[in-house]
Amino acid sequence: MPRHEFNYPKEAQNTVNRYKHQATYSLTTIHTIINTSPILNVSFNAPSSPFPITLPLIGQMGSFDRPSASLGEPLDLYLHGYVSSRIMNLSRASSSKKEGEGEGEGEGKGLPVCIAASKVDGLVLSLTPNSHNYNYRSAVLFGYANIVESVEEKLYAMELITNSVLPSRWQNTRIPPNAAEMSSTSILRVTITSGSAKVRSGVPVDEKGDLENEEVLDRVWTGVVPLYEVYGEPVPGPYNRVKEVPGYVGRWVEGVNEEGRSYAVEGAKRDAPVPGKKERDEEEG
Amino acid sequence: MPRHEFNYPKEAQNTVNRYKHQATYSLTTIHTIINTSPILNVSFNAPSSPFPITLPLIGQMGSFDRPSASLGEPLDLYLHGYVSSRIMNLSRASSSKKEGEGEGEGEGKGLPVCIAASKVDGLVLSLTPNSHNYNYRSAVLFGYANIVESVEEKLYAMELITNSVLPSRWQNTRIPPNAAEMSSTSILRVTITSGSAKVRSGVPVDEKGDLENEEVLDRVWTGVVPLYEVYGEPVPGPYNRVKEVPGYVGRWVEGVNEEGRSYAVEGAKRDAPVPGKKERDEEEG
Repeated sequence: MPRHEFNYPKEAQNTVNRYKHQATYSLTTIHTIINTSPILNVSFNAPSSPFPITLPLIGQMGSFDRPSASLGEPLDLYLHGYVSSRIMNLSRASSSKKEGEGEGEGEGKGLPVCIAASKVDGLVLSLTPNSHNYNYRSAVLFGYANIVESVEEKLYAMELITNSVLPSRWQNTRIPPNAAEMSSTSILRVTITSGSAKVRSGVPVDEKGDLENEEVLDRVWTGVVPLYEVYGEPVPGPYNRVKEVPGYVGRWVEGVNEEGRSYAVEGAKRDAPVPGKKERDEEEG
Repeated sequence: MPRHEFNYPKEAQNTVNRYKHQATYSLTTIHTIINTSPILNVSFNAPSSPFPITLPLIGQMGSFDRPSASLGEPLDLYLHGYVSSRIMNLSRASSSKKEGEGEGEGEGKGLPVCIAASKVDGLVLSLTPNSHNYNYRSAVLFGYANIVESVEEKLYAMELITNSVLPSRWQNTRIPPNAAEMSSTSILRVTITSGSAKVRSGVPVDEKGDLENEEVLDRVWTGVVPLYEVYGEPVPGPYNRVKEVPGYVGRWVEGVNEEGRSYAVEGAKRDAPVPGKKERDEEEG
């Protein structure tokens, strides 16, 4: 555990300008949202396209140099997934490594990417459509992507990412990857430059005018419908021979289901954070 | 219903190059994924930033001119959410409307945006980490965003988006929005230029070599852990006076929960689509 709570510095692209009271720059919060998202939205630019391009990828924060680093410390993001050759080729071109130099020497910064993850925890139903909201957690990271070349770091990231989908799965499969698997798999390491998150939980909040309107109060149901993900009963595949669902699967499913459900349900009852007067004036002005 | 199944044209930025057998360009499929996603990841570029910037926004496909258009027809995307002034100012600048001209006249194309949505339906646990997968649905759209200026179109979009979060909610709240609410809310209309989707469902698939390895088959559990979202018991808020949860809330929660659960569980048992030999050779070559 780090001795201090680290925050990402507030810069132009990561500073939250709306609903500032829901914003956080805490590394722990941001990295936790990223690491618990089954899919990350990774955006980059290609020279020929006027549009940014977004790919759904699997990824995980980690540190190859200090694998025991906590989520509150500076970390890299490792990405793996349906990596089109375009993002790989662009990353390779952006890092523009000079021939004959050692690793890390003479490298460009890499491909600029933005990584976004969000999770909705509940529908917040208030008196008027304008005051409707979600309970949610969302995070965004900015950084430079480079292809991992070292076999050791690649294996570290492959194990990290596999076990982020299901803890202990890596050790319980046929490993290590063979030569064909190693060469067909690419891993990107994103060096993070900044990030931010927004988190809302709690009961509905309405404007004073509506809260004094008896007709509206008598007619409109207000409250929160919690929303959470559930892992169902594991379904054995057609060539499975292992009779019992292994403990590392079953126990994890139970734990993560209970955690998700209680986060959403408790969050539906909590007091909602309300912006200060200064922030409201700024946003409405 | 349209007489034909329409597809988005395959262009450089939307053509899927990996796992082509999971790709689709069908308007119905893409628009359905977008419309059932509680959060859309909207990416754009800002002149001062080397990174694309991604915002989590709420949105819905629709047609103001032909509100009865089906999901299989060409539609616009309406976006609403934590719209920072940056995306609004950039959209306004990009549309660069000429003074004195009528609506739609002399407008630029708008701000180039990419919209991404994904949903994981299950963990596909195979014999080796390399063959692991998700059952999932993901969609991406490209288009030009402009701010909606007409009050009628803005109200159409606000109702469309509110009712996408919870059907019939709009009519069951305090409407219409007052002048302050109308002026503090912005809606973006995205004119779509192209899009694609990828969908996978089904049982695990492994390589021949692993399927012939008795030791691995005896040791590794293979199958699918279904994953689905559940709306929990609605939690009344602190100033709610309506004793019973209204039917349009309760019935919808029941229906959508059953639909989500059965999609994930049935998808866990289905035969998995397998790429043809030509595609495998191309991707591995």
